[in-house]
Amino acid sequence: MAHIALPEGLPGISGGFAFRPETAKPMRELAHILLHESNSLTPGERELIATYVSSQNDCYFCQTSHGAAAASHLADHDVVRRVKTDFESAPISPKLKALLGIAGKVQRGGKLVTAEDVERARREGASDLEIHDTVLIAAAFCMYNRYVDGLDTWQPRDTGMYAQMGQQLAEHGYLKSSR
Amino acid sequence: MAHIALPEGLPGISGGFAFRPETAKPMRELAHILLHESNSLTPGERELIATYVSSQNDCYFCQTSHGAAAASHLADHDVVRRVKTDFESAPISPKLKALLGIAGKVQRGGKLVTAEDVERARREGASDLEIHDTVLIAAAFCMYNRYVDGLDTWQPRDTGMYAQMGQQLAEHGYLKSSR
Repeated sequence: MAHIALPEGLPGISGGFAFRPETAKPMRELAHILLHESNSLTPGERELIATYVSSQNDCYFCQTSHGAAAASHLADHDVVRRVKTDFESAPISPKLKALLGIAGKVQRGGKLVTAEDVERARREGASDLEIHDTVLIAAAFCMYNRYVDGLDTWQPRDTGMYAQMGQQLAEHGYLKSSR
Repeated sequence: MAHIALPEGLPGISGGFAFRPETAKPMRELAHILLHESNSLTPGERELIATYVSSQNDCYFCQTSHGAAAASHLADHDVVRRVKTDFESAPISPKLKALLGIAGKVQRGGKLVTAEDVERARREGASDLEIHDTVLIAAAFCMYNRYVDGLDTWQPRDTGMYAQMGQQLAEHGYLKSSR
């Protein structure tokens, strides 16, 4: 039972979205722009950032659904697990490692990001837009994660459901009611 | 100097919004719905929730601008200060105290919200929609605060500027470039 009377049978954030379609619209649009629209960071890289932040916030629904989206984009489940466990040793680019370092700081608090963190990302080839979007993906998932857990939404433990959801998100993005 | 090359002379979140208008649009829309559109919680009450969460996140720009918006709505500066310092003893309704209790939990982590926190709010007359919006305002300000501080935006210490900004926000909301 969620904290409020959410429509039944809708997992995670979908329950909140169905309860309040007015706020769902900009929340979906923001996720779609940040994770799905064309960008010099691939959708798989951006889903890894979302997954990492959600795992640091201990949000089961978000880390599992976005982890599945990342795995679908990258055709690689193991990299998702390794990014969550220890991204510095994961098989990803030095640029993405630097960006995940920034995302991890933002997750704990915006003021923790240092000039050195940003300089490292720039040295590894990150553009200002990529740094901006990394900060905003991390900040936005501090919202989505708190929304999902703060309402105590239904978060089923059905691995197959998340795999299917991840594939749908990877293909179609966040504007429709597939999330 | 912000961490990335933001347009100059735009305080706080305005710098990020001008840098990336695509993401600014849904972020403005979400704030407008949550804080400004018609709701059984007054705009002043909702700005107090935003201000309290921003002060718990130690975001100078957000707590000062939304504090000024709350003060403008309520024609009362002192209540803003008292909500930030100790909301349980502030001159606000028992319902708003219960909702601030929920908001404070969400700020620290969504899972911290308990059935007892929600029951208290309900006992004081809060509806499911009011509880939902409180959770989402708190979650959303965990995003806005991290965005503003994670980019190291320019946050001037000009009290008069914030008073003017608060009045504009209170009158016109968040869709235009006044924020």
